[in-house]
Amino acid sequence: MTTAKFINKPREVVSEALEGLELAHPDIVEYVLDGSFIARRHRSSSKVAIVSGGGSGHEPLHAGYVGFGMLDAAVPGEVFASPTSDQVAAAARHVDSGSGILLIVKNYTGDVVNFSIATDELVDEGRRVETVVVRDDVATAGGAEGGPGRRGTGATVIIEKLCGALAERGATLEEVAELGRYVAENSSSIAVALGAGTHPGDAQPSFDLPSGQMEVGVGIHGERGADRRPWSSADETVASLLPLLIDDLGLQSGERVFVLTNGLGGTHQLELLIAHRAVAKLLEARGIQIARSIVGNYVTSLDMAGCLFTLVRADDRLVGLWDAPAKTAGWVQ
Amino acid sequence: MTTAKFINKPREVVSEALEGLELAHPDIVEYVLDGSFIARRHRSSSKVAIVSGGGSGHEPLHAGYVGFGMLDAAVPGEVFASPTSDQVAAAARHVDSGSGILLIVKNYTGDVVNFSIATDELVDEGRRVETVVVRDDVATAGGAEGGPGRRGTGATVIIEKLCGALAERGATLEEVAELGRYVAENSSSIAVALGAGTHPGDAQPSFDLPSGQMEVGVGIHGERGADRRPWSSADETVASLLPLLIDDLGLQSGERVFVLTNGLGGTHQLELLIAHRAVAKLLEARGIQIARSIVGNYVTSLDMAGCLFTLVRADDRLVGLWDAPAKTAGWVQ
Repeated sequence: MTTAKFINKPREVVSEALEGLELAHPDIVEYVLDGSFIARRHRSSSKVAIVSGGGSGHEPLHAGYVGFGMLDAAVPGEVFASPTSDQVAAAARHVDSGSGILLIVKNYTGDVVNFSIATDELVDEGRRVETVVVRDDVATAGGAEGGPGRRGTGATVIIEKLCGALAERGATLEEVAELGRYVAENSSSIAVALGAGTHPGDAQPSFDLPSGQMEVGVGIHGERGADRRPWSSADETVASLLPLLIDDLGLQSGERVFVLTNGLGGTHQLELLIAHRAVAKLLEARGIQIARSIVGNYVTSLDMAGCLFTLVRADDRLVGLWDAPAKTAGWVQ
Repeated sequence: MTTAKFINKPREVVSEALEGLELAHPDIVEYVLDGSFIARRHRSSSKVAIVSGGGSGHEPLHAGYVGFGMLDAAVPGEVFASPTSDQVAAAARHVDSGSGILLIVKNYTGDVVNFSIATDELVDEGRRVETVVVRDDVATAGGAEGGPGRRGTGATVIIEKLCGALAERGATLEEVAELGRYVAENSSSIAVALGAGTHPGDAQPSFDLPSGQMEVGVGIHGERGADRRPWSSADETVASLLPLLIDDLGLQSGERVFVLTNGLGGTHQLELLIAHRAVAKLLEARGIQIARSIVGNYVTSLDMAGCLFTLVRADDRLVGLWDAPAKTAGWVQ
């Protein structure tokens, strides 16, 4: 990875990027300076409000998914740092129509704590709040008892899409939260890096990965993986990783899945398509049908070279929600 | 850039990626093995057929723009190599409904020659063919007389979008070609690299760019730029480059433009948004209005770290075509 970046001052990276997002799509989003979050420009007056957020550096997640059919607000922290509880509460207040607020939170200690503090404040104000915690990363499945548990990664974008579509149809807060929890429980992901990303302003990548090596089980904040191994072909890599997801979900022949073959920021679309081919062929060989798939940079880790694979159990109802229209900066379908 | 890739055999990169595209979006595209091109799955029986193509390595261009409202077929060469005239002719025959074929060709010698040979064959068969040549790159504006002239880069995706929308409305071949030529003549681009990309299977990036340096005027095939200079901030970089495009188009205060702030494959969305912010502010200071903008990886150069800026003169009619629905793997709006 090159360490030179298109930035001005490193400490202005997030605020300038959010300003850039609003300038690019003023019809879709507004950057609310008083509170420091991205809100949907045109909101329904009565729907359940959906708010997500987390550290920056994962774009288009989350701000790129604010808009019709997905999120009502996104709350960005600094790069790889949780937003504050004040930001979360301010965003939720801004978009709450009175029909309740769903918070979609990736399972990291800082995010969970700050969204929880915000929830307490919002409930004290008489607002209704439900939370979906995303914990799809099987690389962190075997954590210590009482530890933070599995990390939230690629499934987040799919949960945001499906819950957003259901909320747009006028479902209740409880219905949207139940859907989000169901999808979260039926999601499984794993990531592999071929090269680390570099923080804007840093002179070195966040970890050193010698050429010819790959690291399996990396996190989307540059967390090291459990397993460094020699480079293997796309087909071999997928053959070694995808069964972990299939087993985690207990997927059987005849079942259907959504597939996200996701670039971590520095990997080219040609490679992602080759990786996706391997995923599709392996699923076909297992008798598992692909209901829908997306291939591209949806949940990134700065300019990390790598790929994140996510499977989500699908059914007719979920496919209908997947196909429902959305209008955001970052969702292609 | 890391040199390790998600590939199997280097010589299978393009065909496996095309197979992956079909597996990802079987409802949108088919990979036609007999002819080696990507065709739209569901075509209207009477519309003008639009075919584009060129070397691979620029994904999502072109195959990612095949689908409703954009292209009917995309003809990929090997990485950074022109497709053959046989491929072009086969793709055009496959999608010709009898209403004529528009070829959208980026201005590189190999592409122009091979699309031209294919045109001769198609015309000999009694088919009607028009061609739009895209030549938006101001970095190559001062070429030798009789030389190849300006390269085609970022404007291509916008021409594909606008012509695709007009064809979908039932316009004639001549009308769609005239639109394409008008947009091509009113497009201007320049690219800057912070790091070179690496060909799949190569051990080294395609050129050496020391950290702390940037190269202005690079091409999307790793062509070296005319001007290597010390790194400057995003704002300073945009301030030095964007006036070249404004002057090239002769844009005046009060006019409107489409803006593409395009990543070349290895640059993160945070950086592109910061670069876009600088573009938007500079245009605002000049009194030039942004009609619509897109920010992301639309026309790439493998995993090159860099940014390509494209301006296209806009008017009400073109905005209507921009906003028309499209359903492809790669167009977000």
